Amino acid sequence: MPTAETDNGYLYQQVVKRIRNLRDANSLRPGERLPSLRRLAAQLGISVPTVKQAYDELERLGWVEVRPQSGYYLKAPLASSGRPRRPDLSAVPVPVRQQRLIEKVQQAITQPGLVPLGISNPASAFANPQTFSRLLRRVTTITGGQALGYGPMHGLAPLRHQLAHRYGEMATVTTGDQLIITNGAQEALTLALMCVARPGDVVAVESPTYFGLIELIESLGMMACEIPACPDGGVWLADLRQALDNQPIRACIFASSINNPLGSLMPDATRRALVELVESRGVALIEDDVYGDLHFSPQRATPAQAWSKRGLVLTCSSFSKTAASGLRIGWLLPGRFEAEAKRLKSALSGPTPLLNQWAVHELLVSGDYDRNLKRLRAELAANKERMVAAVQQYFPATTRHSDPGGGCVLWLELAERQDSGRLFELALAAGISIAPGPIFSASGRYRHCLRLSFGLPWSERVEAAVARLGQLISSP
Amino acid sequence: MPTAETDNGYLYQQVVKRIRNLRDANSLRPGERLPSLRRLAAQLGISVPTVKQAYDELERLGWVEVRPQSGYYLKAPLASSGRPRRPDLSAVPVPVRQQRLIEKVQQAITQPGLVPLGISNPASAFANPQTFSRLLRRVTTITGGQALGYGPMHGLAPLRHQLAHRYGEMATVTTGDQLIITNGAQEALTLALMCVARPGDVVAVESPTYFGLIELIESLGMMACEIPACPDGGVWLADLRQALDNQPIRACIFASSINNPLGSLMPDATRRALVELVESRGVALIEDDVYGDLHFSPQRATPAQAWSKRGLVLTCSSFSKTAASGLRIGWLLPGRFEAEAKRLKSALSGPTPLLNQWAVHELLVSGDYDRNLKRLRAELAANKERMVAAVQQYFPATTRHSDPGGGCVLWLELAERQDSGRLFELALAAGISIAPGPIFSASGRYRHCLRLSFGLPWSERVEAAVARLGQLISSP
Repeated sequence: MPTAETDNGYLYQQVVKRIRNLRDANSLRPGERLPSLRRLAAQLGISVPTVKQAYDELERLGWVEVRPQSGYYLKAPLASSGRPRRPDLSAVPVPVRQQRLIEKVQQAITQPGLVPLGISNPASAFANPQTFSRLLRRVTTITGGQALGYGPMHGLAPLRHQLAHRYGEMATVTTGDQLIITNGAQEALTLALMCVARPGDVVAVESPTYFGLIELIESLGMMACEIPACPDGGVWLADLRQALDNQPIRACIFASSINNPLGSLMPDATRRALVELVESRGVALIEDDVYGDLHFSPQRATPAQAWSKRGLVLTCSSFSKTAASGLRIGWLLPGRFEAEAKRLKSALSGPTPLLNQWAVHELLVSGDYDRNLKRLRAELAANKERMVAAVQQYFPATTRHSDPGGGCVLWLELAERQDSGRLFELALAAGISIAPGPIFSASGRYRHCLRLSFGLPWSERVEAAVARLGQLISSP
Repeated sequence: MPTAETDNGYLYQQVVKRIRNLRDANSLRPGERLPSLRRLAAQLGISVPTVKQAYDELERLGWVEVRPQSGYYLKAPLASSGRPRRPDLSAVPVPVRQQRLIEKVQQAITQPGLVPLGISNPASAFANPQTFSRLLRRVTTITGGQALGYGPMHGLAPLRHQLAHRYGEMATVTTGDQLIITNGAQEALTLALMCVARPGDVVAVESPTYFGLIELIESLGMMACEIPACPDGGVWLADLRQALDNQPIRACIFASSINNPLGSLMPDATRRALVELVESRGVALIEDDVYGDLHFSPQRATPAQAWSKRGLVLTCSSFSKTAASGLRIGWLLPGRFEAEAKRLKSALSGPTPLLNQWAVHELLVSGDYDRNLKRLRAELAANKERMVAAVQQYFPATTRHSDPGGGCVLWLELAERQDSGRLFELALAAGISIAPGPIFSASGRYRHCLRLSFGLPWSERVEAAVARLGQLISSP
């Protein structure tokens, strides 16, 4: 394609330079949208294709990202130090002993008055409390009498069918009858793990992994085998294969779409290969898909469930990260363990509250859920760029960070000598909560790592908190 | 006290005879209130003390019962065949294998269109759905925004303090901070049992006992040791002592106030002795107190918790039988196992929904809960008499029945040759659900027993269902 050349070089290169100048002058900040093609073309008196060529070049350089039907957005510049390194693990099962530190961190996370950079759910999951209040009132009026009774043991049929329909769109064959509505994803994970493993059994987890999984494995008296997870693409299949060869692994629990704390997004092809690998060994895969709907790329990742041929994949998810965590509505797609999972739900906690199920059902059928999700994903994608930029600005230059493909958390690797447990205490004293690295490892690794949330609405207070953390790290 | 004598004997005896005639003519039916003292005195032209003397005599004869601040109520006549017999158990621990039958029964219980005599919660726990709807709307308006977030891991502080205050009135020392809000009593029981026993351990249960406990013990891979429970006063302490001597019992789970399925009320003195016995052996007692508030006697039973000296009593309860089962709000008072119970709540399911906790809090502080409870207890006490009378009228004369001190279920012992599993199927075909005896025993005892609910509003349809059951039993 021919391009217009001027005295100052190709026209499109001038546009590229202009955007870079805007960025350097802080007139355009990471997470913000670039002017539309038409608008910039009109402004500069050049053609739309030339602006398009410039934006494509910016995308190739990793400065901007394209979001379909939305536009081009400025990304934070990539730190020269790059991504956190692949952890060097021996993949030996360990008994889990992390609950004390986890409790301490959880208390800090919910402590009022702090800047809660330790949270893992978007603070504005549902943007408008008034809208949500109205929704709940509508549900109450409709269901008042019905919500008094126990309701079906495994969930409200219309809600189960709504969920089945949504999975159907992702090419996962399921009927609502298989699905079990649970008290949040955490109960779904508990039921799933009790279906596939017994006390003393070895369970493979990503490393680093969500601390709730570590607590769960510890509570059920099982052993954890840590498989390195890559900040770009999730768990390393070669490492998993080796662990399966050498250890008596009964099950894997992986956040197989978007990981917490890395924020990494596993490519669909890897997830498919993962399912084939575990099913060929007769090992169950529990997928924790709570962040699946919060993808930054145009397409949602396909759940592992979609590729299961032997029924060994159990899918756990919830609305706690995407709508209202307070309702505590999760679900379990139990694969071939349907009968056992249903028995356990009945025995361990009984039916999930009916009113809450009706509220989520109304959220789905009204279209409010999808509309809100679109807003939320755009907000989080912008927040991510702002957080990465803030870390690059305020943290020591040696800091490595992950590149989340969705969700609301960023993983940081500091210099080896740093102690995130000490940083946690210092930050707390400064009115900030963070999630220190060791709570994400059954064996207490990642002492020099931490997780930061970009789930808060971006504000000067949040940016000041990141700056303060940077100071605390830089001090001797 | 001098009494007026007439030609027809003492005046008060005429009153006694008059009431008996009304009963025999079905003009006054079991569960109904007798005319007030003043009204009957005025009607018969005799003195109030004479009527009082007659009513006292009727009470002594077991025909009526007094409910303070309410009046005198006609009881069902005591069947000559009396109470169900003490089960003869060898108290040997057994692995539990009852879930299939339990599932079948649970499906039938919730099947629409049936007369659900198999349920164990009062159908009209909250009499007025409109009032409840209004309450929920108020809560939604107040808490809309707040209900969006996760809320504290172990429960809403104001609700925990309300509950602690109510326990305080029963002389149980507790602060709200110890208490954990759970997803119904079933989750409280799960947490409690996981705190005190491990897979393979032996757990003492009443026999017969609530099938949810059998499911729970089975799901956690534990063994059950059945201790005979008496239809009048709960578990037999002599049998328990013997079992403790001979079996490695780690914990007891008893409905130590009002039992399900017997409806039996353990006297406070026995409960106190029970606590002393288990604590002297270092054995934990999990008390399932869900029916505690539904007592027919004027005073509520004192929870076992009140007598605990070593912290080995764990109290589980909920609002599912007394307010709204659909909200699924229960709680656990964990005794000395507070830290472990809190860890497990976090690991297995996370926080209980906030909206539901606010609703129950509003129910308590508004006084609606206590007002409704008073109505509910009166209704259930009347229903019990009606159900006992119906059983006596329609069932074979050899039928034995329990004498519930509260709650909403009646336990029946048929002739030895009867099979309640077959009766369950026949009843189902006739549009009636019942709860057959074997689901209440870990070892499948009580084949000739069944549980009937008197938790439905009394109606001709209910009475006709009891009559139909009677026919099904009498057939060869």
